[in-house]
Amino acid sequence: MRYDLLVIGSGPAGQKGAIAAAKLNKKVAIIERNQVSMGGVCLHKGTIPSKTMREAILHLSGYRQRDVYGDRYRRKRTIRMSEIRKKVAQVTDHELQVIQDQLQRNGVDIYSGEASFLSPHEVQVTQTGEKITLSADLLLIGSGTKPSRPDHIPFDGECIFDSDDILTLKEIPRSMIVVGGGVIGVEYAIMFAILGVQVTVVDQRENLLGFCDQEIVDMLMYQARSLGMVFRLGEQVTAIDRLKHGMAVIHLESGKRLVSETVLFSVGRVGDSENLNLKSAGLEPDERGRLWCNENHQTWSKHIYGVGDIVGFPALASVAVEQGRRAVCHAFGEQFEPCKQMPYGLFTIPEISMVGKNERELTKEKVPYEVGVSRFSEISRGTISGDPVGMLKILFHRETNKILGVHCIGETATEIVHIGQAVMAFDGTLEYFRDNVFNYPTMSECYRVAAFDGLNKMNIDRMIQLDTVAEELWEEDRAASELSMKEEAAAEISVSP
Amino acid sequence: MRYDLLVIGSGPAGQKGAIAAAKLNKKVAIIERNQVSMGGVCLHKGTIPSKTMREAILHLSGYRQRDVYGDRYRRKRTIRMSEIRKKVAQVTDHELQVIQDQLQRNGVDIYSGEASFLSPHEVQVTQTGEKITLSADLLLIGSGTKPSRPDHIPFDGECIFDSDDILTLKEIPRSMIVVGGGVIGVEYAIMFAILGVQVTVVDQRENLLGFCDQEIVDMLMYQARSLGMVFRLGEQVTAIDRLKHGMAVIHLESGKRLVSETVLFSVGRVGDSENLNLKSAGLEPDERGRLWCNENHQTWSKHIYGVGDIVGFPALASVAVEQGRRAVCHAFGEQFEPCKQMPYGLFTIPEISMVGKNERELTKEKVPYEVGVSRFSEISRGTISGDPVGMLKILFHRETNKILGVHCIGETATEIVHIGQAVMAFDGTLEYFRDNVFNYPTMSECYRVAAFDGLNKMNIDRMIQLDTVAEELWEEDRAASELSMKEEAAAEISVSP
Repeated sequence: MRYDLLVIGSGPAGQKGAIAAAKLNKKVAIIERNQVSMGGVCLHKGTIPSKTMREAILHLSGYRQRDVYGDRYRRKRTIRMSEIRKKVAQVTDHELQVIQDQLQRNGVDIYSGEASFLSPHEVQVTQTGEKITLSADLLLIGSGTKPSRPDHIPFDGECIFDSDDILTLKEIPRSMIVVGGGVIGVEYAIMFAILGVQVTVVDQRENLLGFCDQEIVDMLMYQARSLGMVFRLGEQVTAIDRLKHGMAVIHLESGKRLVSETVLFSVGRVGDSENLNLKSAGLEPDERGRLWCNENHQTWSKHIYGVGDIVGFPALASVAVEQGRRAVCHAFGEQFEPCKQMPYGLFTIPEISMVGKNERELTKEKVPYEVGVSRFSEISRGTISGDPVGMLKILFHRETNKILGVHCIGETATEIVHIGQAVMAFDGTLEYFRDNVFNYPTMSECYRVAAFDGLNKMNIDRMIQLDTVAEELWEEDRAASELSMKEEAAAEISVSP
Repeated sequence: MRYDLLVIGSGPAGQKGAIAAAKLNKKVAIIERNQVSMGGVCLHKGTIPSKTMREAILHLSGYRQRDVYGDRYRRKRTIRMSEIRKKVAQVTDHELQVIQDQLQRNGVDIYSGEASFLSPHEVQVTQTGEKITLSADLLLIGSGTKPSRPDHIPFDGECIFDSDDILTLKEIPRSMIVVGGGVIGVEYAIMFAILGVQVTVVDQRENLLGFCDQEIVDMLMYQARSLGMVFRLGEQVTAIDRLKHGMAVIHLESGKRLVSETVLFSVGRVGDSENLNLKSAGLEPDERGRLWCNENHQTWSKHIYGVGDIVGFPALASVAVEQGRRAVCHAFGEQFEPCKQMPYGLFTIPEISMVGKNERELTKEKVPYEVGVSRFSEISRGTISGDPVGMLKILFHRETNKILGVHCIGETATEIVHIGQAVMAFDGTLEYFRDNVFNYPTMSECYRVAAFDGLNKMNIDRMIQLDTVAEELWEEDRAASELSMKEEAAAEISVSP
């Protein structure tokens, strides 16, 4: 069977790429390992399960309204993993249906089976022994990633887990060590801490989430520590062993040993490309199984595009969607306007979101900026929602007041960041947030409060400048009058006999 | 004591006006009835209590996650009015503190007592017999509103309530009739319905919330009816009587009688101006106690400004804040950039928010528009949050794709509407939402889905146009060929002997 476009992998990138091509009246097929895995890691093991678990925990634990109802509501009942899994299954089933409907409605052919390149334009699909060969003018690889599972880590799915099988946990453990403080590791660590698990995060880096605003990471860590979480940063794991009685021990290079009921080993992910026989397509993934591609998402073989997590950073579903469409637009010569300001969202508790540059970057680039800050506790909505932990920072240019970045932590951060994103996309300034009305009471009001804070700082700054100018003028005056006094004195002297 | 600016009323308009003036280094005082009422109706009887009650109900009833956990969680426990009041008091106390701190920090003098004009520049403040006279160059009246309480309605605070004392209800009643289906009436009606109260809404208008998108109002009413709510529209209340055993009976002009345990009479509000002795200031409120003012918020006495609910529509705290600042900027000759696109938020369940024009307005103005729609149930976030009732509509110009309005119902509607507002403020088009990335999974993704829906519609439209053109061309062709056949025939005839 010959297609205009053949898509390998049905995650967000593959789905949206396939649909974009179908909408251009192209003949499109999508290959996914099996019917059950349709939707990719995002739907089955990544974003959707972890965000669903997050929502379940927030709801069932009463964490959201803890500030109002206090600890009585905090752990109002024991939560079981089976309950969380049930909710995850419900959401996954629904989403699966939505994806299948969407692909079918758009006339995308779906093949179940393991994909493997036979040549640059031919892919073999193998399902329970049966083999089909498909060919296409253009190909889109969005086969995603899988957890990195080093040989020396004794993964067993009982005591030592990776981030893809952590949700198969039979019961909520008493303790957990999370090795790897990346986004996935931190998201799970905090969820389990809220469930009452004694969580320790180990990472070889000295700072977590280095691409985020430091103040916001500090707030997150403060919150996490108040849940009893322990951070062991700058520590290298040398080995993990299982002990009797189902415990695990982690050996650190510094000589320390940590003992825990469970381990979540979450140190990076590798491209899910080893079965694709990329060599036949003229491609070679890097040592982490990832595909190189150019800004149009073309690989070295120009008719093969790489999209989604397999191409590396930022490995976000939201970005994968964009990449899928971008690749297809390029492949079929359609115009494509790239996203002006990319938002990033972390579904930690509290959630974190950002758009634009952070303070570290601006300082490095020597851009003169100022910060307008607003705390959720100053906003009525924060008090009402009983979750006053939150902050919004607007970074703006000191001379033009142009918005350079928005960084937010707290409930709805991942939603309200899009307001700042829009204003930035149109080159807006801080005055936008001063001059426009926000619904009351909402978290979005933080923008207004932060803008006033920023403008106040600039006013004070200008007053100081004026003071400095006044002082300089006064100094000049004084110097001038001293001079004239000296001159007078000199004149007097010269006049005197 | 003489001031640059004297503010009457400490609601959102008064507060922000006073602070804006203080920041301009003006000598400012604010007068509020008593220390306890600082913050105005907004804080004590309106926005804050009702929104806090709303949040408490959503949390305690488990309504938010009902779709996932089912009815088992729906009414997971009996909720008591005392609990709701306790939560309200907690939030109110905190907000009161914030307001007082803010006023004090900005050096605004605070007077407690009943304000009454002595002359256009003099106000007497009376507190427990003591009288002080204050004078000012400029005055700001933001004294707010109070419920309209017609004489023939036997309000008693036990069975028949207005919207200011409804929260003093001792217990949650079994039934309630809400007379008046305005924003306040509908907000409370739905809250009580979720608490299990049998609620009937009576309104003389045929359509509720006429300023909202009709499809969204229909969705709200559908939701409300599924909670057991009954709407009696186009019905006039002629009398309300109390029966024995604490019941009330409502007589309708149509001859119907409705019996209920409680009545919330919520038919409009009137300006809280009767004690102000406005005549001495050269002012006269209208028959509903409201103040006329021009676009700069000046009353007939040019040095006296009117702001907040007392000047009428839209009577929203968010707008009051803007009005306070606008008036002060005008009064002291500061530049002021008015809000380009005003958002409106209704804290019904589900919540409603909008910005720009609605379909009715655009049709009336003969603006050719198209609609891009997205439903929360199509968005992963909707499924995850277990509250899939929601919709976002983008109205855009058919020729330019310029955004004309955004209408949204559902969880976070009041937050995400600000994204559309920003894009509209910068004259953005539908393509903005197609070309920019949104965090996944968030409700904000609705913008993207709605944009694709809208663009698809326009593509189909263009295809139909092309078809029509093709058909016309074909018709022309046919006519031309028929003509030429006739000509040929004629030629043949003429040639024939």
